[in-house]
Amino acid sequence: MTASIGIDIGGTKLLAVRLQGQEMVAKELFSTPGEDMVGSVVAAVRELWTDDVTSVGVGVAGLVRFNDGVFVWGPHVPGSNVAVREIVEGEFGVPVIVDNDANAAAWAELCNGAAQGHRDVLLVTLGTGIGGAVISGGEVYRGLSFAGEWGHMMYQANGLQCDCGKRGCWETVASGPALARLGREFIALNPEGQLARLLRKGDFTGETITRAADAGDETARGLVSQVGAALGQGLCSLIAIFDPEMIVVGGGLGSIGESLLGPARRVAADALHGGAHRPLPPIVVASLGPEAGAIGAGLLAQHHIAAEAL
Amino acid sequence: MTASIGIDIGGTKLLAVRLQGQEMVAKELFSTPGEDMVGSVVAAVRELWTDDVTSVGVGVAGLVRFNDGVFVWGPHVPGSNVAVREIVEGEFGVPVIVDNDANAAAWAELCNGAAQGHRDVLLVTLGTGIGGAVISGGEVYRGLSFAGEWGHMMYQANGLQCDCGKRGCWETVASGPALARLGREFIALNPEGQLARLLRKGDFTGETITRAADAGDETARGLVSQVGAALGQGLCSLIAIFDPEMIVVGGGLGSIGESLLGPARRVAADALHGGAHRPLPPIVVASLGPEAGAIGAGLLAQHHIAAEAL
Repeated sequence: MTASIGIDIGGTKLLAVRLQGQEMVAKELFSTPGEDMVGSVVAAVRELWTDDVTSVGVGVAGLVRFNDGVFVWGPHVPGSNVAVREIVEGEFGVPVIVDNDANAAAWAELCNGAAQGHRDVLLVTLGTGIGGAVISGGEVYRGLSFAGEWGHMMYQANGLQCDCGKRGCWETVASGPALARLGREFIALNPEGQLARLLRKGDFTGETITRAADAGDETARGLVSQVGAALGQGLCSLIAIFDPEMIVVGGGLGSIGESLLGPARRVAADALHGGAHRPLPPIVVASLGPEAGAIGAGLLAQHHIAAEAL
Repeated sequence: MTASIGIDIGGTKLLAVRLQGQEMVAKELFSTPGEDMVGSVVAAVRELWTDDVTSVGVGVAGLVRFNDGVFVWGPHVPGSNVAVREIVEGEFGVPVIVDNDANAAAWAELCNGAAQGHRDVLLVTLGTGIGGAVISGGEVYRGLSFAGEWGHMMYQANGLQCDCGKRGCWETVASGPALARLGREFIALNPEGQLARLLRKGDFTGETITRAADAGDETARGLVSQVGAALGQGLCSLIAIFDPEMIVVGGGLGSIGESLLGPARRVAADALHGGAHRPLPPIVVASLGPEAGAIGAGLLAQHHIAAEAL
């Protein structure tokens, strides 16, 4: 059975796993990679290394050139034009693949998770922003390299400021920070309400509002629905664009499940192009949780090395 | 050399061509197909039939199930769930393919037109609305069936009313009717201006405003630029989503060329996600004009019949 190491690098955390075939046999979480991103990758691979490892996969939050394994740029990860594949291959002498983190997570969901048995699937990850990946005909679709960055599709011309510098991107209304903003706005208008009492001053994150919703706070549930509606409208655009078999929603915010996906499905069903003549595709929660990216990076490495051996 | 017949059905016109290999050797334009859409197709095929024809391709403006050749629904074409393939095959005894009209046009541009030599291309057709097609790895990408309907991606939440029943679809701001609306609005505010004199009362179509722009009217040129900017913003979303090699812009409005595409490119370059780290893909005018759909339908029929023979 093939052993591989999978790495998932986000803005603040690096998760490393070792796989035996499809099974995760070891994992380790490291804090922020610091300025030397590729140095952190090398250190993490060394930490999990065993002599039966035959490939390494690295998923990075940002624009990655899969063909030559270069991390081009990402708003939350330091460095640009980093030759990750070349450096890690030089260090360990095994084949390395480098991909966008959402592509890696989608591959894991396809092999082992919510998308098993499907061939044309979109993964939408909701967290600080919106990430995405396209599975087409059972393979990751990358276009030239960077496909799936629909967090930055225009959703509201001249709308809210996005971290990317533009205005009105979809992720400005459907993400953790969008939920936090709704909370702040509501509490500014209702400073004596229950939600204000529940959330200590300044503690407006997507997570605290989600927790208040889970605890049954009506207002918080309403705010989650509002983000769900914006999610559903954007999913509807993606359905018009791709006509996928299924959409898998992952990421930290995505994991809250039905209180978000219920409103998203209702809005999407209502706004579906040609909706009287076609069903809404299933919109489901990702099943592999925060390990999807690292597992998927390891599985993608196995997949491509097997393909090259043919 | 293989002979095929290609048909392109829009809301008001049906164009039929006969191809010898890739070359168009006959064509005929029919007016509106009326209520009996498939009857019009049969009549047009009969008109162009010669005994060496070995396949027929039909492109329809709307949602088409390629797998079984059923026209499901379209806002501008009569009928729904029409078994076009079955009926036309029964009539002529040769294999028939049925596809979305933009898919057919994209295939023609790939084989013989602006996208020759490329493999990952988007076609965006601008007319009454926005149509679209995805070429991925040198083949038409359909998802389950209906991919490419990005005219109905959300562009301005709670924006202008779209023909599809939703609000704020991209085609409400980047299409012939969008240009006509800008003209009407401008002239309502400036009833004594030059543009008002140029356009006779009520004569506000995308085409008349385009002609005024071509004739050098500054205001009309400004309105075309405004539509170009909305086009560019939406293209920018598509680039973030697909990362294509190239975008080909076709359709009646698309054919006006640089006065529209210049502003579109400038806006897209400015708003490109990760724009400091990647080039803007070429955004070019389609080269086959209004015959692209019919030619592409015929070429797609040849392509699929050759593929089945393997």
